[in-house]
This record gives sequence, C-alpha cells and structure tokens, in this order.
Amino acid sequence: MEFKIHFSARAHTYTKEEEDAVLEAMRNANPLTQGQNLHEFEAKLCRYIGGRHAFGVCNATAALELAAQLCCFDKGDEVVIPSHTFTSSAYPFAKSGARIVWADIDPHKRVVTAQTIADKVTSKTKAVVVAHLYGYGADMAEIMEMAKRHNFLVIEDAAQALGVEVEGKMAGAYGDFGVLSFHSHKNISTLGEGGALMVRDKELAALVPGLRHNGHCSFLAKRNDYWIPAMGNVDFPQINGRVFWPNNYCIGEVECALGLKLLDRINVINQKKRERAIRFIDALADFPELEFHRVPSSRHNYHLLAAKLTNGKRDEFIRRMAGDKKIQCVVQYYPLNRYPLYQTAGFGDADCPNADNFFDNMVSFPFHHSLLDSDLDYILQSTQDVLKELRA
Amino acid sequence: MEFKIHFSARAHTYTKEEEDAVLEAMRNANPLTQGQNLHEFEAKLCRYIGGRHAFGVCNATAALELAAQLCCFDKGDEVVIPSHTFTSSAYPFAKSGARIVWADIDPHKRVVTAQTIADKVTSKTKAVVVAHLYGYGADMAEIMEMAKRHNFLVIEDAAQALGVEVEGKMAGAYGDFGVLSFHSHKNISTLGEGGALMVRDKELAALVPGLRHNGHCSFLAKRNDYWIPAMGNVDFPQINGRVFWPNNYCIGEVECALGLKLLDRINVINQKKRERAIRFIDALADFPELEFHRVPSSRHNYHLLAAKLTNGKRDEFIRRMAGDKKIQCVVQYYPLNRYPLYQTAGFGDADCPNADNFFDNMVSFPFHHSLLDSDLDYILQSTQDVLKELRA
Repeated sequence: MEFKIHFSARAHTYTKEEEDAVLEAMRNANPLTQGQNLHEFEAKLCRYIGGRHAFGVCNATAALELAAQLCCFDKGDEVVIPSHTFTSSAYPFAKSGARIVWADIDPHKRVVTAQTIADKVTSKTKAVVVAHLYGYGADMAEIMEMAKRHNFLVIEDAAQALGVEVEGKMAGAYGDFGVLSFHSHKNISTLGEGGALMVRDKELAALVPGLRHNGHCSFLAKRNDYWIPAMGNVDFPQINGRVFWPNNYCIGEVECALGLKLLDRINVINQKKRERAIRFIDALADFPELEFHRVPSSRHNYHLLAAKLTNGKRDEFIRRMAGDKKIQCVVQYYPLNRYPLYQTAGFGDADCPNADNFFDNMVSFPFHHSLLDSDLDYILQSTQDVLKELRA
Repeated sequence: MEFKIHFSARAHTYTKEEEDAVLEAMRNANPLTQGQNLHEFEAKLCRYIGGRHAFGVCNATAALELAAQLCCFDKGDEVVIPSHTFTSSAYPFAKSGARIVWADIDPHKRVVTAQTIADKVTSKTKAVVVAHLYGYGADMAEIMEMAKRHNFLVIEDAAQALGVEVEGKMAGAYGDFGVLSFHSHKNISTLGEGGALMVRDKELAALVPGLRHNGHCSFLAKRNDYWIPAMGNVDFPQINGRVFWPNNYCIGEVECALGLKLLDRINVINQKKRERAIRFIDALADFPELEFHRVPSSRHNYHLLAAKLTNGKRDEFIRRMAGDKKIQCVVQYYPLNRYPLYQTAGFGDADCPNADNFFDNMVSFPFHHSLLDSDLDYILQSTQDVLKELRA
C-alpha cells in the first residue's frame, strides 16, 4: 500500500552543532571507542537522570541483557513483566533463566501499576520489569515501596521515557536498574543505535565494565612492568561466587560525543512532542469514542501517540485511514504471550484482560519528529472524517 | 610511564568524502538503522570478500557470538581454537556450550595450520576457529580440505585480516563463517565499533536477521490487513528443531554509509601498511635475533607488526624501549588458557608449546596508522640502539 504519511520515521534531525560534534569526534577522538566521550556521556547521564552509575552501551536491549544477568536468577525464580510492551523488555530475562509471569496494565494509564504487579507477585518473584511505555512514567514510588516489602529487584525500562519525570524524579532513577534507548525512533538518537544502563548498587555497577567489554579487567597485583604477565587481564565478572559470561556491548566515541550534545535539548524535544500531542488530543475532544491518555506534564513525553477506540470499530478505522486517507496508523504492542517465541518458551499463558482489550482496540498514530504541522492537521482532519463516517 | 610513542591509536583518519558520507546519512538516512545503507554495505562486502551472505553487526564479537550459536553445539562437542589469539575468538564458543580445545600455532607463521589443528581434532570436534592473527592469512585450502574429511565447521576470524588474500581468495571467504571487524584499531573503522558475519550456508544465513534483531520476523500467512494480528511477528530463529534465543546486534545506517566508502580504500590502506612493515623489517636485517614474519604480498596486511626475540632478552628489550626511548612496545596475545576466565571455565590446560614460546619472547611494535614516517624512523633507530646494547 502507498502511504502519504508513514507511521515510522527518524526521531529528529541533527543541528549544525550536533553535526560538528560528530565531525570533531571523527577527526580527533583517540581511540574511537571506550574513551573520554564515553566517560563524559555517562557522567552527564548520571547528572540528568540523577545520582547513579551510568553505562553507555550499543543499544537498549544490551542494557536489558546486562540487567537480566545482574538479577542473578536461580532456577524457579520468577520475573514479572508487562505483557503489553516491546519484546526486548522481556526476552533477555527468560534467556537469563527466569520464568516470566505477565502483569496486566492499568486500562487508563496503559502501563503496569503497583496493583497490577501485586496481582502477580509470589514468593518466587525475584524481579519486576516496569516499562514506561509510550513515554508515560509509571507509578514508581508505590512500586518501589512494594519492592522493598517483597524484596524484589526493579528494572525500569525507560527506553521510551528519557526525560520523563515521575513525582519529582526521573524515570530510570527509581529502580535497581534503569534502561535508556537512543534508537532511531526514540526522542533522541545517537546515530540510530545506542543505549544506557543505570545501576543503583555500587557492587553490581563495578561488574558492568567487564560484562560490557569481553571480561577485560586489570591485574590486581601491583606490577613493575606493564606487560608482565600480559597487558591486561580477562576474567569472569563475579559476585557472591556467581560468575557471568561477558559480552561485547560497547558504544563508540562518536555516538557518545553526539549524545552529549543531544542531552542538552532532550527537554525541548519532549516539550514540543507533548504540546503537539495535547493539541491533537484536545482537537478531538468531541469524539469520546477515541480515548487518549492526556497528561499535560513532564510525566509524559509522548514518544508515541496512542488511543483506544471504544466503538468496537478499530480495524475499520485503520482500514479507512489507510485506504481513503493514505495514513499509516498501526497497532502496538501485541501482548507478548501471543507471540510464537513466548509460546514456544512456555510463557504463552497470561491473565491480562486489560492488555488484551487495549491492544485489540488501540490505534497508534504517526507521530514522529519530521511530521510537519500540516501533516498533523491532515491526520487530525482525516481522523475526524473517518470517526464521523463510522458513527453513521 | 610517559611515552613519546604509544602503542595504541586509531586505525586511520577519515577523508573529506568519508566525512560527507557520514553527514549525508545523518541528514537523510531514514530510518537511522536497518535501512538501505545496511543492505548496500552487506552487498558490497559480499562482492569484496566473495560470494556469500554478509550481515553487518555492531562489532566482531557479536559476529562470533552468532557464529557460535549457529554451530549448534550439543553437550560434549569440542571446538578447536588457537590459544594464541584475542579472547573474543574463544569465549562465545564456550558460552554456547562447546568444550574448548586449544590448538597450537606454527612457530613461523604465528597462526594455526592444518597440522596444528589436526593434532587436536577428535571425533567430538564440531568446529574449528582459525584466526588470521596480526593480519596474516592462514593456510585455508588445507584446513578446509581437512574440515571436509573430518566433517567439522570452520569459523574464520578475519577481524584483523580484512582484504587479506590467501591463494587467490579473500580471508573470510573460505570458512562456513567469516568474521570481520571495523573496530577503532582495525585497518578500517566504522566510527570505532562495527563488524560483519559472512555465512556460507543459505539456510543458516536465513536465521541471521532474526538472531541479530530481537527475533523479529514476518508472519508467514498472506495478510489482508497489515496490522492483523499484529504489525510484525517475533519467533525463535530455528533449524532442525533447534531454537536460538535472539539478540540485538544491529549496526546503524551512518556506520554502514561510512563502511561503504571505506571499502573503496581498504586495499590502499593495507598496501601502505604492508610497505611500511617490509621497510621496517628489512632495515633490521642485520639483527637476526629479532625475527619478523616477512610476507611482502597481499597475504599479510600488517594490521600489527610483531617479532620474536631469540636472544632471551625480550623483557629487557621492552624495558629499555619504554624507559630509555619512551616507546611503548607491548606483548600479544597472552595464551588464552592462562587467563583466569578460561581457567575458571575449565579450559586452563593447553599443550601449545609454540604459542607459549612465542608469547614469552614476542614484542609488538607501535604500528598504527597515525605514526609519521619520522616516528617509524625513530622506532627503527631505537630498536637498533637497544638491540646493540643487548648484544654487549
């Protein structure tokens, strides 16, 4: 099908200053990976998110893989994960040996809450993944309170929620681990791929450099000759007698140099997306059959613009938007338990009626950075037209 | 210690045309990952290396992890790996369940040969890793002949050997899998990180896109509506009833756009390194106690410039080069079985006297792209000075 307006596009264009940062790093960064820009980017992420250890990695899935390793799952341990999220929020935890238990979403907030998590927590729950999906920050204070009571780890998947504030604190700053993404589609992107892992615990944080970079580490003994017995050491990152296979999840210096610049304007980018979203939502106030999640504050960065159709005509709506208006609306996020991967892995069952109901009635509008105001007006007008037709 | 000449530095500077390719992709690539540049880069790699399926990935370790997964190891399977190589050539195979058996190197070629591999092949050998270390292409024809006879898979680790020709065919084109690296230190670098996996078998190649990108795949059934049952599918890549956990090893479009340009001059870069190496080696012809591997052909790209000291005074040589001349020579590659990681994993034993002997007597000279001719002259003069002192 030919579309006038596609769903997907890049996050944003780059400014002259950002292009210059890339050229400067191309010309002068030495080495081109694991250098000064990485350290500065990580320090700036710590300042921006607040207070912990930050590690730049090649993508957000890598950050989730690291978090999953560091959860130290034993046989029988359970991890509670929203069924309504992107697959990378889930599969690394099963790969690391945990049994996935799916949590439902709140029907209005479209993310998990302390209540929907509580419904799935057992004595076997070792960890809970909270995805700030669509760019909305979940109720972290309550969830962390429950984590303390029940002694489980919390992984905040803030891949879609960079710069989102939840009750005075950034998304990604609450959990034992916080995951950030700078992928092509996200509100800022380090050349298409990139991510970061925030770690609260100092001892766990000390394992990440080795886990990220092939198990490279220093020799502990003081050495008189820098090359004896070898230049560097290679060992298993380990804690409490448990050893971890290392990985290579490094991110390059050019990406980090760019990330440093992008952090200066993430708030502006988020603010613009939020204003556009609220304008769009309010312009459709006369169509209550299209339910948005309206949050006119920094708690939502509107990475995505999703709505639920309450008239039971979601498929016909998308069909007409696509066929008549040439606008590519999509559906997100297929309840993970319905995918063959999770069914084959033994996680095909979920008792998540809100997630199922939301997915089966939801529509996600094109909402990328490069949409012109006139594009948005066209989507808005088309939405009104089609909703009116569907009322008839 | 303060050095006048450091061992490590970037691979090369970027030309104006390469900078422009990066800017062009920053401005216009859409999306910024998994797009047209990736496809073109992979096609060009296939043409350059010769004839197979190529997959761009975030780094060469990721390519080795994919190759290790696709070896389909069962309990008890052995993989023969040189003890004298970089750790990434080895740990992914142990992580994927194989038992590592260390192969020795040939004392003159400093890589494995059909003979040193044959010494370690048993009925349990499922795969053999051949590392074209330092940039020298191993005897692939003989090794492939043996692989056919003994029915084992061959993984060519050509991370250091892009553009190296072995008897009329490129390093990386012989094995069942070929691994390329575009890391900061390599002869060409896609902004510091990057790699590729070459795959010979069509059925195995078909698994790589899903393995590389979170298990994303298409729905097999023809669909009337592009969003039903969901936008895309997620499943285990699988073959012969074996399923593989997916990963996220994607490389961005900007890196691929740059890689496309760099492939146009890899032969020129390699030729320049080779000429410099041969000049350096020949200028030391009067010092037979310093044994180089002199290969004045495209079989060696001199990614690194390594020599063996036969006078038993290697440590004193490095000490004087560092202390008196402020030149940072190093030692490479610590026999992997000596590292704590491999000892802990149960692979601490190796019967590889050549590798041990070479490591214990070798020196690797600074040989990066940004060394000036005057730097090389200084290293040369200093080497002559120190060798003369050591004779006294």
